[in-house]
Parts: sequence; C-alpha cells; structure tokens
Amino acid sequence: MKPYAQMTKEELLALKEQLELQFEEVKAKGLSLDMSRGKPSKAQLDLSLGMMDILSSEADLMSRDGVTDCRNYGILDGIPEARKLLADMSEVPERNILIYGNSSLNVMFDTVARAMVSGIMGSTPWGRLDKVKFLCPVPGYDRHFAITELFGIEMINIPLLSDGPDMDMVEELVSTDESVKGIWCVPKYSNPTGVSYSDKTVKRFANLKPAAKDFRIFWDNAYSIHHLYEDKRDIILEILNECIKAGNPDMVFKFISTSKVSFPGSGIAALAASEANLEDAKKYMSYQTIGHDKLNQLRHVRYFGDMHGMYNHMRKHADILRPKFEIVEEVLAKEIGGLGIGSWTKPLGGYFISFDAMEGCAKAVVAKAKEAGVVMTKAGATYPYGKDPKDSNIRIAPSFPTVEELKAATEIFVLSVKLVSIEKLLQA
Amino acid sequence: MKPYAQMTKEELLALKEQLELQFEEVKAKGLSLDMSRGKPSKAQLDLSLGMMDILSSEADLMSRDGVTDCRNYGILDGIPEARKLLADMSEVPERNILIYGNSSLNVMFDTVARAMVSGIMGSTPWGRLDKVKFLCPVPGYDRHFAITELFGIEMINIPLLSDGPDMDMVEELVSTDESVKGIWCVPKYSNPTGVSYSDKTVKRFANLKPAAKDFRIFWDNAYSIHHLYEDKRDIILEILNECIKAGNPDMVFKFISTSKVSFPGSGIAALAASEANLEDAKKYMSYQTIGHDKLNQLRHVRYFGDMHGMYNHMRKHADILRPKFEIVEEVLAKEIGGLGIGSWTKPLGGYFISFDAMEGCAKAVVAKAKEAGVVMTKAGATYPYGKDPKDSNIRIAPSFPTVEELKAATEIFVLSVKLVSIEKLLQA
Repeated sequence: MKPYAQMTKEELLALKEQLELQFEEVKAKGLSLDMSRGKPSKAQLDLSLGMMDILSSEADLMSRDGVTDCRNYGILDGIPEARKLLADMSEVPERNILIYGNSSLNVMFDTVARAMVSGIMGSTPWGRLDKVKFLCPVPGYDRHFAITELFGIEMINIPLLSDGPDMDMVEELVSTDESVKGIWCVPKYSNPTGVSYSDKTVKRFANLKPAAKDFRIFWDNAYSIHHLYEDKRDIILEILNECIKAGNPDMVFKFISTSKVSFPGSGIAALAASEANLEDAKKYMSYQTIGHDKLNQLRHVRYFGDMHGMYNHMRKHADILRPKFEIVEEVLAKEIGGLGIGSWTKPLGGYFISFDAMEGCAKAVVAKAKEAGVVMTKAGATYPYGKDPKDSNIRIAPSFPTVEELKAATEIFVLSVKLVSIEKLLQA
Repeated sequence: MKPYAQMTKEELLALKEQLELQFEEVKAKGLSLDMSRGKPSKAQLDLSLGMMDILSSEADLMSRDGVTDCRNYGILDGIPEARKLLADMSEVPERNILIYGNSSLNVMFDTVARAMVSGIMGSTPWGRLDKVKFLCPVPGYDRHFAITELFGIEMINIPLLSDGPDMDMVEELVSTDESVKGIWCVPKYSNPTGVSYSDKTVKRFANLKPAAKDFRIFWDNAYSIHHLYEDKRDIILEILNECIKAGNPDMVFKFISTSKVSFPGSGIAALAASEANLEDAKKYMSYQTIGHDKLNQLRHVRYFGDMHGMYNHMRKHADILRPKFEIVEEVLAKEIGGLGIGSWTKPLGGYFISFDAMEGCAKAVVAKAKEAGVVMTKAGATYPYGKDPKDSNIRIAPSFPTVEELKAATEIFVLSVKLVSIEKLLQA
C-alpha cells in the first residue's frame, strides 16, 4: 500500500470506510486489553517465587558482618552484603552505595525533597530560592516530571536524540543558568524510547561545567540489566567514574532498584553517588527512619547470591519479554510500515516501545483505541506537565499482556492510528 | 539509710569514699551494657520467627480482594486485609486507615514534610510561613523533636503531668497562636515516662479550638497494645472518635506500626485519620511511590490472622519484658528508695522507665555510668534541642539486655546516681 499522504481524497475515504467496518468488528468483541504501564507479567513474577522460602524460621538471620541481627533495629545504610550486591548492580564500589526502601521512585522523591528542605552538601535549600529549574529530556518518564512539578520546579524540555539528550542544549543551559539544578535521565533503554546514551553523551555529561554548584544529574538507571537479547545489548559508560575522571565526583545521583528483577513493590532500592553526597543523604535519612527492611535486603542477597545469579535471572525475564516486544514490532511493521503515518523504536531492552503518530494525532489515537477496549498510556504523559507540544508521542508497554493479547491489542492500536491519520489528512 | 540531704558533710564524705571503692570494683570488671534504646531482645524477635515461613513458594499470594497479586505493582493504600488488621489495631474503621512502609517514624516525617511542601487539606504550605511552632510535651521522644527541628519548626516545651500534657497550657497556646500547627503526643505508655493520658485529657484534646485551621495532633500510638501485665493495663479513649464527636474530625493524625510486634524495621506502619485527611495524604503519596511492600503486608496478615492473634502474640512479648522492668524497679527501690536523690516511673507498658535525678545531675550520671561500661540514652535527649532545662531526666530502656545484665547495669547506674548526688550536695 502506498503512503497515506500520497492518496487522493477518494482513496482515503474508501479506505476509511473499510477500516471503520474492521474497527466496528473488533469493537464488538468487547475486549479489555492494557498496554499502559510497565508492569511485569505473572510469568515474570513466578521467576522469583523461590525468594519466598529463602529465609525460613530455621535460617540464619544474621548479616555477614557477624553482629547485625537483620530482624532488629540498626544499620541505616543497608547490610554489607546488600550494599555489595547493589554496588555491583550499579557498577560502583561499595563505598558509593546507600540502600533505601522498596522503591527507587521514592529515593528520587526523597532526594528532590531533601534538596528543597536542606539543600545539597551545604547549598541553600532549593525551597528558599525564587526559581529552580530541571531539564527534562523528552519524551521521558511521567513520574519523574510529576515529582518536579509537585515541588514547583520549572521543567524545560530537551529533545532526546538517538544517542541521548541534545547535549548542546544541555551544556548551554547548565553552564549559563544557575537556577538549573538538575536533569532527569534514564540513560539505558530509556523510558519510553529505549534509547541508550552513547559514550560521547556520557562523557559530555561528566564534563559539564554547571553554573550552580548544587547542580546534579539524576541518573535513573532503571533498566541497567534489563536486556531483551543475549547477543545484542546496549552498554553504557559508568557515569560516576566518568564524573570522577572529569573532576566532578559529586555531580551525579544514580538510582537503581530490583523492582523489575525480583518483585515490584517488594524489591530493594539504592542511591549510588560520591561519599560526600552519601554522607549528606545519610544525615537526612537519619531523621526519616531508624532503618530500612533488612530482612528483605537479606532475602535478596540470599536468593541472588551475586551478580552472576542476577544476570542469570534476568535472562529468564528476557525470554518472557522478548516475544512480546517482537509481536508488537511485527504488527506495527506489517500494518503501518511504509504508510508514513507513524514511526516507532526497536529497543534492545527496557520496558517500552515509543510510537510517534502524525502531529496532532496522539490523543485521538489513544481515545480511539480505548473505544475498542485497549488502554494505552495517556497521550502527553511522556512530557512535562502532560503536554506533548506535537501531540504525537504514545508509549507502548508490552510487558503485562500475553503474546496473544498483545497481538490483538496492537492490531486495534494500528487500526486506530490508521483511522485517526486518515481523519487528519482529510482535514488538511 | 537517711535521705542524703539530711546527712552532714562528714557523713557524705565517708559514704562517698565507700561508694567510690565499690565503683572502682565494678569498673574493673570491664562490663559493656546498654540501656540506651528501646530495642527488642533476641528472645522477642524469636517470637515472630514463624513469619519467615508464612509465605512460601506454594502459597497463594493474591490479596483477599481476588484481583491483586501482592507481588506486582498496584494498590497505593495497602491491601484490604492489611488495612483491616491495622485499622483494628488503631481502633478505627477501615476507611480511616492508610498503610505506609516499614516505619511509623517515616510516616511522621513524611506527614510533617508534606505539610511543609503542600500544606494540609488546602492550607498554605508551612514552608512558606514565617513561623511554625509545635508543642512538645516533655520529657518526650527525641526522634519526634529531631524531625521538627530539621524543618526549622520552633518547639515549645509543655510539662507532661501524670495524666497527660498540661492541658491548660495546650489549650491556651493552641487557641491563641495561629503559628502553633501541631503537638507531638505519645498518649499511651509515653516515651519515656510511661504515662497514659486520662479520659479527661483525651477529651480536652478532642475539644481544642485551634486558631490555625491546619493545626493537627500528632498522636503517636507507638505502644497501643504493648502492655506488661495481664491484669493491670492502661486504657485510653480513642482520639479520632472523640474528635468526630467534638466536631473536629480532621484534627488528628494517628500513627501506628508493628515494629515492636513483629520485627523492628521489617514491620508495617500506618496513618489513621479522617477520610479527608487520608485523601490529602494519598495524593502526596502518589508522587512518592507506586506502592509499599504488599508481600510484607500479606505476611503480617497471614501470620497474625486478626487482632486476637496479635493480642496473644503481645502477651508473649509481655512475659519477656515484665521481669526486665521489675528488676530495674527492684534495684532502684532497694538502692535509692527514700534517699531523696531520684524518682522514677513504674509504667504498666511501653519500653521505658523515666528517671529524674537531682537537678543538674543527669549529664554527670550518664557520664559516670559510662565510665563503668553502662550506656544510657544521652542526657537531654528527652527534650527539644537536646536541652533538659533542669538537667535531670534520664531514660532507661530495659528491653534489650538480659535480666542478669539489667541487674548489673542498674546497680552501676544507682552507684553513679549516688556518687553524682553526693558531689552535688557537697558543692551546695
């Protein structure tokens, strides 16, 4: 079939009629399918079931330090074996890791909140400044943007290119505007595009010359070990080490969790950063809590053992996720390829496929798909303030449904894209 | 022996010499004993060991709602069965409970932080006000005072009487000063005195007429079911219900956790409040996290079953704790009773005994005890800013050591009290 833009009005109208019939047919099936959130499937959760039994009433519940009963109060920064495991996962030395609770989102929230209340390493608390700005590579993760919005931080869109954020723009803004205090990054298998930052991009990040001393890179390495393929993988440079080499050891906060390794909501999360940053974070943490759940830390270490154990485990996740990504990509390629009404990413890992519809079509596509029972992430959600200036980007989350459901859902999705695109072209 | 104050200088000097010999003897033993923090003992932790096995790889990990897989994302406010259990523990209906993470201290921290950032139910964020004040019944809990100090909230000491805070003073300050936004309360087996608030006190709290609409009572019911005796128990009126009856349904935040029921650090915590307050809290929470650890919620419900199960469990804690409180009280009575150099509380529950030395002696007593290897809570810790105006109060935490260790530690403690008191009297 030829590109829609090259069709005559008559051809479009004829096609529209035919597609509408198809749409009414699937709509009549009364399906209920969800491609909205990056939620692991039941089969993935079953992979970690052995973790339930790993601590028994007969188990030794002492930390390897020989003095810490993991059942009792004590140890603010995490038991040593959990620090070792998450340090390895974060590719940093143990001295650079601080364990938090069950959610890296909460670590990010607390980190911004801490900067608002107490400043960073002695800086003026952001809450006392007239203006605080964050750079937001777009499309990006809605929950990042929600945190900065809650705290009244002004968000500036930065285009996310194929090798990372537009670094010319980042360097310009960071080096000239003292009110720019941070940037949200998902450096690997980015949410939602799947883009991974190139070595050059990471090095440019590490070599930033911020106008603000308390500028920090918020490096959410959510998908650091979440590959889809054994033989094709993105590898990114380790940012903390690059920052140290560049003379900027304190410039980055790395966030990590096992939410999509073990159990979402019942994993463990951590902050990786320079020792000076961690001292600062730990001081604030000492007001928040006596300590995090050390039994759950121990449970993770006993179950995974070490990074080899975790890597093996991630291969099993990949085996479940891969066919799901592939079926979505297959339907998209078959049904929309060459029509000039949409483009999409083909990530090698992570949890999302990013789809760009024709300008001004995203909201209508999501609404249309919903009519036939397919829930997509809200259009606009991938932009600060929920405002996609082109109304074009749609996040596809293929992890939760089965392959069969995904096939059905993606077919409804492409039908919606076609119908909305025709509508748009007819109006033009 | 007669009261020290009635002794002649010669008698005091002779006694001092004799006590110093005793002190050198125990000091030579090189003991290391800790009565500083309210930490459960190993025997108490062993009581909950069965919880380790309660969720197995074969267990049904679905919530009783029939749709929530507790291993996955979802459910911000806690699974229904956990809400039921903690609602019962808090003596409120299920609609008035919101489950948080592993620490009620963190819930309190977040609640103050939320008020600073977002205000309460539409009020001006406290962070934007020139002055925010909290009333602090003293002696009280150091970690409460640390939170308010961190946020720059001015703390006002309120004497804690035998039936609760000085309510004349509370009523006066709350009704006339709009900058008074909260009061820290441990209403039952108060930390450190063990005092429980009388019905009259609770009713006066519920009937406060605050000048500030966003004034809240921070009701930390940390020891709600933590009795020492079967036949002698403090019972306090349920504050939320009293507030509702008084037309002040939104005036109280109740905090609760299972830290000293199951495992410190691996328990579950909750906020109990009016539905309007919980809506407000939930909205903020939706920025912080996708959800708390539902597997740990399920673990608690499966293990305790219901409040009867929890009450039975608490009897076992009491059996372990009771002899510890009794040995401390026995040594205190035998060694210091009638000497006029100290008084102490005899709580029916909770985790602490509060000791009042002669004015100006607390710091010296704690330092003296440390010389002989006994660690006490830092003198002053029970007051805002760490400043006990009379330098008199010392918190004794008898839960962690064994009965034998407590006997030895308390004997060193009383020896220290005697020596410091004589010193003081000789200086006078």
